[in-house]
Amino acid sequence: MKVLPSINAPRDLRLIKPELLPTLCEELRQEIIQTASKNGGHLGSSLGAVEIITALHYVFNTPEDKIVFDTGHQAYAHKLLTGRQKEFASIRTKGGISGFPKRHESEHDTFGVGHASTALSAALGMAIARDQKKENSKVIAVVGDGCMTGGMAYEAMQNAGLLRTDLLVILNDNQMFISQRVGALGKALTKLLTTKYVQLAEEKATNFLKRFDEVGNNAARLAKRARAILFPGTLFEEMGFRYFGPVNGNDIQAMIDVLENVKNIKGPVILHVVTKKGKGYKPAEDSPTKFHGIGLFDVETGDSLGKSDSISFTQAFSKALLKLAAKDDKINAITAAMPEGTGLDAFRDKYPSRYFDVGIAEEHAATFAAGLAASGLKPVVALYSTFAQRCYDQILHDIALQNLPVVFALDRAGIVGEDGPTHHGVFDLSFLREIPHAIVAAPADENELQHLLKTAFDAKAPFFLRYPRGAGFNVPMDDKIKAIPVGKGKWLQRGKDVTILAIGNRVHPAVEAARLLSGQGIKAGVINMRFVKPLDSALIDDALKHSDRIVTVEDNVLAGGFGSAVAEYLSDKQADFKLLRLGYPDQFIEHGKSALLYEQYNLDAAHMADKILNWLKEK
Amino acid sequence: MKVLPSINAPRDLRLIKPELLPTLCEELRQEIIQTASKNGGHLGSSLGAVEIITALHYVFNTPEDKIVFDTGHQAYAHKLLTGRQKEFASIRTKGGISGFPKRHESEHDTFGVGHASTALSAALGMAIARDQKKENSKVIAVVGDGCMTGGMAYEAMQNAGLLRTDLLVILNDNQMFISQRVGALGKALTKLLTTKYVQLAEEKATNFLKRFDEVGNNAARLAKRARAILFPGTLFEEMGFRYFGPVNGNDIQAMIDVLENVKNIKGPVILHVVTKKGKGYKPAEDSPTKFHGIGLFDVETGDSLGKSDSISFTQAFSKALLKLAAKDDKINAITAAMPEGTGLDAFRDKYPSRYFDVGIAEEHAATFAAGLAASGLKPVVALYSTFAQRCYDQILHDIALQNLPVVFALDRAGIVGEDGPTHHGVFDLSFLREIPHAIVAAPADENELQHLLKTAFDAKAPFFLRYPRGAGFNVPMDDKIKAIPVGKGKWLQRGKDVTILAIGNRVHPAVEAARLLSGQGIKAGVINMRFVKPLDSALIDDALKHSDRIVTVEDNVLAGGFGSAVAEYLSDKQADFKLLRLGYPDQFIEHGKSALLYEQYNLDAAHMADKILNWLKEK
Repeated sequence: MKVLPSINAPRDLRLIKPELLPTLCEELRQEIIQTASKNGGHLGSSLGAVEIITALHYVFNTPEDKIVFDTGHQAYAHKLLTGRQKEFASIRTKGGISGFPKRHESEHDTFGVGHASTALSAALGMAIARDQKKENSKVIAVVGDGCMTGGMAYEAMQNAGLLRTDLLVILNDNQMFISQRVGALGKALTKLLTTKYVQLAEEKATNFLKRFDEVGNNAARLAKRARAILFPGTLFEEMGFRYFGPVNGNDIQAMIDVLENVKNIKGPVILHVVTKKGKGYKPAEDSPTKFHGIGLFDVETGDSLGKSDSISFTQAFSKALLKLAAKDDKINAITAAMPEGTGLDAFRDKYPSRYFDVGIAEEHAATFAAGLAASGLKPVVALYSTFAQRCYDQILHDIALQNLPVVFALDRAGIVGEDGPTHHGVFDLSFLREIPHAIVAAPADENELQHLLKTAFDAKAPFFLRYPRGAGFNVPMDDKIKAIPVGKGKWLQRGKDVTILAIGNRVHPAVEAARLLSGQGIKAGVINMRFVKPLDSALIDDALKHSDRIVTVEDNVLAGGFGSAVAEYLSDKQADFKLLRLGYPDQFIEHGKSALLYEQYNLDAAHMADKILNWLKEK
Repeated sequence: MKVLPSINAPRDLRLIKPELLPTLCEELRQEIIQTASKNGGHLGSSLGAVEIITALHYVFNTPEDKIVFDTGHQAYAHKLLTGRQKEFASIRTKGGISGFPKRHESEHDTFGVGHASTALSAALGMAIARDQKKENSKVIAVVGDGCMTGGMAYEAMQNAGLLRTDLLVILNDNQMFISQRVGALGKALTKLLTTKYVQLAEEKATNFLKRFDEVGNNAARLAKRARAILFPGTLFEEMGFRYFGPVNGNDIQAMIDVLENVKNIKGPVILHVVTKKGKGYKPAEDSPTKFHGIGLFDVETGDSLGKSDSISFTQAFSKALLKLAAKDDKINAITAAMPEGTGLDAFRDKYPSRYFDVGIAEEHAATFAAGLAASGLKPVVALYSTFAQRCYDQILHDIALQNLPVVFALDRAGIVGEDGPTHHGVFDLSFLREIPHAIVAAPADENELQHLLKTAFDAKAPFFLRYPRGAGFNVPMDDKIKAIPVGKGKWLQRGKDVTILAIGNRVHPAVEAARLLSGQGIKAGVINMRFVKPLDSALIDDALKHSDRIVTVEDNVLAGGFGSAVAEYLSDKQADFKLLRLGYPDQFIEHGKSALLYEQYNLDAAHMADKILNWLKEK
């Protein structure tokens, strides 16, 4: 008989006999695997965290006690245990539940997440609020080892170490960041796990002591042994936390025991828990990176389903970078823990000494690149658009203000689909366009991407190349990569009734929309603008000679974006014009298949054509 | 005879007899004090760092060896020793040299700075570039203790600890952040300095050992003593750095000796140097916060000169917050190491348990506030506009996406004057306006500020209140604070020829401009828009009934700002209009007195009126 169906809320869970919990964990795993195979999702982390989540809801009095998940892609078991079994099949689909914790979805989702390293700050805020309200609840932050590389996690630890309120941090160490362990903290964690820890500490202590001639060898040996044995987790202890661990986080009984032991300790506590990413599903255990975030797959084999014929924008970037780097050894590449996601893995394998994975640390990534550029190298920082928000100040203050030639390859710009609003990259055109010295470009397709990448390295200025998630348009790839003049767009076709100014991945749909319009007797021109900044004002002037009716199309919010730049230009010029701007309205865009979202916001060819037709009729 | 005048570059310095260096340092101090008293500036930090800077240029082969200053407000002696004695009198004045290192100013200014915690990242980039180029130069980062609270410093330390290239970090510990020591790291540094360190470590070790019953008392005592004595700077050692110190950083000979000793050590090294902020100038030693960044002052007494009659926007915020907090104990206030600068010091003194100084850690500040808000409290985060760039992602992802009611009091918005482009807050209207759920407001004067602050707390949404540095408009302050309807502006006067839509501190100049225009026979209307978002579209529609000529005026960049929002609205509405937008062009704005900058960019009343008059004539 199955255990899971009887659990409608954590209070039901807490009635279950402890010996049934391993069975329950197995049922949770099967449910997660089956659903992820159909809907895609963050499988590996969620499988690894099943016992942690079950134990937390078993030991703590949720939702009065509050669990804050960092990043949130490990929380599928949490959804299943907190009243969302029925909705679980809809996860990540349009109108269904989110793949991430959402406050509007459940009182158990105490804080919405998606980007890394936020949970400690949010949980500390909740702990302080609890104290002020004189409540007795517990606050628990569940944080992956990768998230601890982010600077804001350190800022929060500092603050927690000072405030000393009761706060339990579960450090879920799956020994694997999104890609691989990076940074000194990663090394420190590894040390805690290895039997060689004592030996390493001794070597370190010996080196250290070479500086102190007066200290005798015996004292040194004793001291270093003592430190290694008696002070594990020194880093955390120095930050004001009490450290416990490591504990096997995939052993449900061990987890329950240790949580019972630490739950009433006063002050900030860190519990170091070791789990296996993909635990319980062999293909995911064997290929943790592949199964970190995955599309549809065959449960039996783990093979991905539904591949596209076209190469992706990411692949086009990856290949073009290799080509350009072969001819220019000044090119360096930097990622924030996303070598596979950004396509930098190929560069890493070919040019390891020019490759830097700095961890989930976008701020450092940007300014480190600025340092390289200030010394004459040519860095490219490959990030997802949404994560570039993390280094906005560094882009503005450290790079643009000094006009340093750092290239940003912003993948996953625009709508990303099922991951939803925490991952859509629909703000970048707006927040980049206001930055002096910045060049902001978006290729129409995977072929133009390679040419714009060369343009970027040649430009000797801060250059932001933004392109979408997923498959390209299956266009032929030119063999030779040639730079495009900065700030120059291109007429694709001319028409007397209206001109569509399109940017990035909306160029091809705009051409198709023009074809549909011609079926309605409308002659529409189409321009591939390529650059949001500098804006090709000569081309816009030329468009006005054909028609005073201009349409802008972008995979970005309307506020401050590409169409906004066109509105500024046209009104500053005191032109006579009528403007229709297509893009995302002033709201966060929900999750769901990208194709469905484009339709909803009139950004696919058919709806675009309809919208333009109606607008032309209105006036 | 004076030593300083003969030093045209560090190579001259390196010829000087060591026993003359204390005299040189004294001369540097006098020059700094005299000039700062006339031009204002960051006096305290620059006085404290005189010996560090002199010793660095004496021991290292600058500019081949590269010094990267963090934040940069300690670098006046560096400017004086690197060929800028003649220009030094012009520091911070329009057309003169900058108060911060600037790459365009000198090859000795290796990296432009202004915001905290960037130097480690930039220096690491330079060190890696040196390695790739097979050069032998040294790279030194000079970092204040306050800067070490920023998360990006930690990200950089992590990365440096992993890469293990040669990098020397001078941790300039003046035992005083901009305001006061905060955070667990601050506590750790203090421990290193105190004779009680061993004792504290013993207590900590004893507490730790209570968890290990099997460990006998003797071993424990031995171990904890050993750790305290043998492992100072454990935190840094854990991050992969070798730690040396503390050293008296105001003793030039001691500094030279220790730098000679550490300069050839391989790998990342941190040298902990203790200095006195304001060293050598009694008023600054006694009042380090006052003299951190100061306007003109009397050298004899240290008294500030040139006070305004009007209360400042900061004071108006400070007072209004106290009034509102007296009636609502849910109000909490958060600062990132700027209690005096933001005016939160009064709140701190009155409501210490609801006050949080998180250190220079804006990312944590924002998400910590989100945690408070998610638990029903009413946080206000008081930052300078330019530093809000540091928490852009947290604002967007952690606050706005969840529509959490966090109030941001953004001081120093718009032009700040002498501190220049690293500190001007001229981008906020643009980067905030694109964020769904955000309310963005700017008061016309200090009286409206208090009403908008109440509006903000009542709004139950993310609310950004931006207001400028310095004196208000000397308007009467209403006794009773009343909320203003969200998104509602106000006609100040009507006119048939043109309507000026003004926002924030440009409202009063706009009224004056309208008066000047009426002298030219032009009837200009003026609207105080108050809100950039939501935009008062009804009021704009009403303005169009008076005239199709609209002027927007803002203390922000034109790209994506307030006038951009108006251009979007008017063109989306397919209105017939002519628009003139006044604000900052697409470039970084230089340093200089705010009044001069307003004139240059047509934002004072006289130039505004001229510009409008010419525009009306053109068409």
